[in-house]
Amino acid sequence: MVGKVEPRVPRGMRDIVPQKMILRQHVMGVIQDVFEEFGFEPLQTPALELEETLTGKYGPDAERLIYKAGHRGGREKLSLRYDLSVPLCRVVAQHPDLIKPFKRYQIAPVWRAERPQKGRYREFYQCDADTVGSASMLGDAETLNIIYEILSRLGFKKFVMNINDRKIINGIGQFAGVPEELLGGLYRSIDKLGKIGLEGVRAELRKTGLDEALSALEKVKVPGETIDDLIEALRKVDLATVELRLRQANLEDETVAEVMDQLATIDLGNRPVIPDEVVERLLELLQIGGSNKEILAQLREWLADHPEALEGVAELEEIIGYLEALGIPESYYQVVPSMVRGLEYYTGPIYETVVEEAELGSITGGGRFDELVGMFMDHSYPATGTTIGIERIIDAMEELDMFPPEVGTTVAQVLVTQFNPDLVTESLKVARDLRKAGLNTELYFENDLLGDQIRYALKKGIPYVVILGPDELAADQITVRNLPLEEQQTVKRTETVGLIKQWMAT
Amino acid sequence: MVGKVEPRVPRGMRDIVPQKMILRQHVMGVIQDVFEEFGFEPLQTPALELEETLTGKYGPDAERLIYKAGHRGGREKLSLRYDLSVPLCRVVAQHPDLIKPFKRYQIAPVWRAERPQKGRYREFYQCDADTVGSASMLGDAETLNIIYEILSRLGFKKFVMNINDRKIINGIGQFAGVPEELLGGLYRSIDKLGKIGLEGVRAELRKTGLDEALSALEKVKVPGETIDDLIEALRKVDLATVELRLRQANLEDETVAEVMDQLATIDLGNRPVIPDEVVERLLELLQIGGSNKEILAQLREWLADHPEALEGVAELEEIIGYLEALGIPESYYQVVPSMVRGLEYYTGPIYETVVEEAELGSITGGGRFDELVGMFMDHSYPATGTTIGIERIIDAMEELDMFPPEVGTTVAQVLVTQFNPDLVTESLKVARDLRKAGLNTELYFENDLLGDQIRYALKKGIPYVVILGPDELAADQITVRNLPLEEQQTVKRTETVGLIKQWMAT
Repeated sequence: MVGKVEPRVPRGMRDIVPQKMILRQHVMGVIQDVFEEFGFEPLQTPALELEETLTGKYGPDAERLIYKAGHRGGREKLSLRYDLSVPLCRVVAQHPDLIKPFKRYQIAPVWRAERPQKGRYREFYQCDADTVGSASMLGDAETLNIIYEILSRLGFKKFVMNINDRKIINGIGQFAGVPEELLGGLYRSIDKLGKIGLEGVRAELRKTGLDEALSALEKVKVPGETIDDLIEALRKVDLATVELRLRQANLEDETVAEVMDQLATIDLGNRPVIPDEVVERLLELLQIGGSNKEILAQLREWLADHPEALEGVAELEEIIGYLEALGIPESYYQVVPSMVRGLEYYTGPIYETVVEEAELGSITGGGRFDELVGMFMDHSYPATGTTIGIERIIDAMEELDMFPPEVGTTVAQVLVTQFNPDLVTESLKVARDLRKAGLNTELYFENDLLGDQIRYALKKGIPYVVILGPDELAADQITVRNLPLEEQQTVKRTETVGLIKQWMAT
Repeated sequence: MVGKVEPRVPRGMRDIVPQKMILRQHVMGVIQDVFEEFGFEPLQTPALELEETLTGKYGPDAERLIYKAGHRGGREKLSLRYDLSVPLCRVVAQHPDLIKPFKRYQIAPVWRAERPQKGRYREFYQCDADTVGSASMLGDAETLNIIYEILSRLGFKKFVMNINDRKIINGIGQFAGVPEELLGGLYRSIDKLGKIGLEGVRAELRKTGLDEALSALEKVKVPGETIDDLIEALRKVDLATVELRLRQANLEDETVAEVMDQLATIDLGNRPVIPDEVVERLLELLQIGGSNKEILAQLREWLADHPEALEGVAELEEIIGYLEALGIPESYYQVVPSMVRGLEYYTGPIYETVVEEAELGSITGGGRFDELVGMFMDHSYPATGTTIGIERIIDAMEELDMFPPEVGTTVAQVLVTQFNPDLVTESLKVARDLRKAGLNTELYFENDLLGDQIRYALKKGIPYVVILGPDELAADQITVRNLPLEEQQTVKRTETVGLIKQWMAT
């Protein structure tokens, strides 16, 4: 035994105390119910995966956030899972006897060592439903149907499922005609359209390829407005103008020389930028609007020369046809050609959901990942599905006071009090009988004053209190107090359950 | 992206595929229901704890099995939780505003790097219910009541909750009159009574204090029977006899000299052993039998001079009184004075459960741990509770075929088939309506032959198949096939739900 230890959790992690946990279980219960209604089956995978299972799946930025683990004398390199999709693909490859399509759900924590901030934790739960082994767009439509059903059932009224297709995005990349190495930056820029608007995207696109030059300028604290001026000169590799502007910004000679030296090493002439006319064409494309069908029709025109993009358009048309058949109102889904989504492994339709009732960011993320299983075996299986981000949903529901009253703040529905030590065994029997009748019942353990026992029920939020004193015992009766109604009744002992259930029903 | 990776899980870990997961959820559901019926509330703690939180709580042997974790740039030393009790105590110390008694349950995985073997995994679930903040034996009785209720509800008929009290064990240690340093060995020996019998315990007790000497003998491969002979001589520090016996065992002179040299360094004279008369008194004490009350009455006599033991006896008497009042048959609980339980932190009543229907070892373990919270704050809270070992329970229930038929092998109750691509949207609508009626419904995604679709349902164990062809559509009808009964009916579309629910009820 060692000395006292300060009770703390690791940075970015937290305990969920019962009052919050009850809300959490309500949300997880609804999600699980809907998953099962659609025939998805539960799967459990270990929290620890072999490091090699996770390597090379998420892209380098994400991979840096993976937790490593090990034990004394252990030779395996272990990692805590980063999401539930890669473990799913590993499972499919490892258990070839699983019947296809394999429709599984998993509700489980994942770990990411991200910088902790409000509402973002290093351990958080994901609720995933995925279909592996079917290329049908019915699977993608069903995924959206599930999201719609879950959010509606939780009480959200204003939310939009944004839909796009990686094939359309690839088409946009081809349409822009920029070299391979600029595609990542291009996609990252257009993905921000919703956040930073058209002008913001224009600025971002014009910076593409200039990262190193700009970070050199930022390091010596060139004022922001000067940097904006410099981008034009940098795009033209006009270093004379760059130097002139730096001097005009009142930077010291030494500093200017330093920056120019750095820029010289970058060899800007060989860093392609996105030409102005391409930027403008892209912005025009991103501005297309109208109904979902109109947007798809316009994309079909704009991207007519790019067969992969047309495939993506056809996929979204098919999905939207199914959503219409299901009667999901069009206000709940939106084709957004600028939406990219971060993870590398998507190959077809992608979707995310934004709740308009709260500032939440995206609360679901998903899409088709037809190639991921193939990283573990000699052939691949088509696959699609979504993650539902339960932490943000719970935060929003609390903020908007959306939990139904029956969810409550505590588990116990009845508190059986203890009149005196001689009557404890009678209280035990009453508690047993209430539990047999399906009522969650706590027995008060200490022989405190009755008032203290009732105060305990009030403090915890237990609505009904059972009192059994010598008088009640002699008369084979029981007293039940209804705390919310502030009334009490003495009834025959056999009528206790009936009285409480009657009160509960009203 | 990297090359192909062989799909594997870390050593000692496993995936739970849906068929098994459905059984698992049934068991976890029953456990959660019972916990909540008794008013226990859900708690979630992070899988990762600070290393310092776990250090010094479980004893050195256990501590070696703890998994370590970390991330790039992280400065904290992290560990994966080893059980749910220590995190609970950390929570109680960290959140002083939690209302006491704090009755919480937690159903969650823990990680231990034990040598993998059949039925033992390095990641396994614990189901814990604990009461913190009450010293009342009602809490201990309730814990036993919960175990009884859970196992009965799961369908176990022959099981015994073994009960003892750490205070009685301490009394037995005092009764033996052996020095502090032999107590650990003494307790480990008597704990094996159930496994190795009285003679086995006698042999073990006689070895107490001789560990080093015996391991020196084992190293040079002295035959087992000779070792048994030598124990008597070693207990008397009669090294001449030891040497004689070694020579008689046909060991080479050199080996004998080597062993004798080693024994000389051990200084046996200062290693106390348990005197013969104490061994015999202990064995007599461990042989006491009869009803629970008779055992306690005899312990009261035997340990009359040890007040702490008498306290333990009184605690068990009180608990048994409550179990009687609850009407739990006495065949389900047994006072076992030799039961010790491994973990260091127990302070009062301890309990474990043995299922007699299967060779399982103990499937629950628990007890009172009044001092553990005090390792995290300036005062302690009394606490008691139990862990239920779900993995072994599930294994036993599978082995004994104990799962009720309604648990099934799959989640979906209905498969809606796809007649041809033109009718897909109609199938979508039928599936939607069945789900609305609360039926778990899978839509078949591919336009395969109807026979293949039905074979899929058979293979998965989905009992009802819905067929909607052009004829049915025209007549506003639907065909439903009942696979287990091998019959089918064509009914009005609005009657589909009614027909299936009627079949399900029979």
